Amino acid sequence: MTQPVEFYFDFASPYGYFASLEVDELVAAFGREVAWKPIMIGSAFKASGNLPLVSQPMKGEYSRHDWERVARLMGAPYRLPDPFPVPALPPSRAYWWLEGRDKDLARSYARAVYLAYFAENMDISSPEVACALGVPLGIDPDEMAAAIQSPQWKGRLKEETEAAIAKGVFGSPFFLVDGEGFWGADRLWMVGAWLEKGGW
Amino acid sequence: MTQPVEFYFDFASPYGYFASLEVDELVAAFGREVAWKPIMIGSAFKASGNLPLVSQPMKGEYSRHDWERVARLMGAPYRLPDPFPVPALPPSRAYWWLEGRDKDLARSYARAVYLAYFAENMDISSPEVACALGVPLGIDPDEMAAAIQSPQWKGRLKEETEAAIAKGVFGSPFFLVDGEGFWGADRLWMVGAWLEKGGW
Repeated sequence: MTQPVEFYFDFASPYGYFASLEVDELVAAFGREVAWKPIMIGSAFKASGNLPLVSQPMKGEYSRHDWERVARLMGAPYRLPDPFPVPALPPSRAYWWLEGRDKDLARSYARAVYLAYFAENMDISSPEVACALGVPLGIDPDEMAAAIQSPQWKGRLKEETEAAIAKGVFGSPFFLVDGEGFWGADRLWMVGAWLEKGGW
Repeated sequence: MTQPVEFYFDFASPYGYFASLEVDELVAAFGREVAWKPIMIGSAFKASGNLPLVSQPMKGEYSRHDWERVARLMGAPYRLPDPFPVPALPPSRAYWWLEGRDKDLARSYARAVYLAYFAENMDISSPEVACALGVPLGIDPDEMAAAIQSPQWKGRLKEETEAAIAKGVFGSPFFLVDGEGFWGADRLWMVGAWLEKGGW
């Protein structure tokens, strides 16, 4: 049995958001599944010496412009949130808590988090917002609030982030297809090519 | 009359090399021409705070691997040169000297330089190599050697690099289509989409 394609992302990453809108359909076309893996990309930046795009001269300005035009081309709802970026700890912990119970529910929650941040400018670094976003999905906000504060799910997010870095993940989004890494929403076409050809 | 699509690159840039193999055909399909513009991307890195990819932890290792697989997928001759990267001052100055005389000849010379570095592992930071590469194209090596050392063409390369940075160019390759910037060989498809739609 084949392993799922791993989709690593940070909830505060615009390119991660754009990739989240396309990755499942692209991968399903090749009969494979996707494992969504939110991580704290800031930790990977520390390991790789990277900085958030908006903190970089020239590249920051380019990226702001690029996010707008990518969204227009995709027809995706988007506005640059303010503040941006934020540490998305609460929904990331909540995701891993949910994922252990119901993978589909966790994915629906992840989509809601991305939309809240990049379409609705909600502060996803707030535990209250993270919990509110689960309510329409039938998730008890008190249970989620407890999970967000629990050492177990704090630890799980940290472990997932460290495991990703150990596998070479240094940006968001990052895809692993049978161990082969692809960095960037720009490279989804290559993920598809790799799946189609079985590598080259 | 429309302006040519500007193609900025550094002769020591693998992604610039890959883009050089595709950009003319892609742009010609939309009835437009390409202006090739070699620059010293190290100067842009100083302005933008970037580092060469191979100097970056994790991203450097990823890039080395990516160049190999991109080349295989394209069927392009490629090996990572040693040493890499090098400051490609001699062929870059020679290009601008040639470009003032014969744009087609300058482009043929640029292709020869890229192949020499990325297929044949020749040291393109050497003035002797830069001059030798012009000989099969009928370019007098003594004239080229003089141009490489002249303040005029040293100055021209510097001006072109500074003008590029002033336009927001921070990486190689970088494309400008009627003022709209696109960074990376990955984004050639978007250059095509922009030309096709006239922007969006």
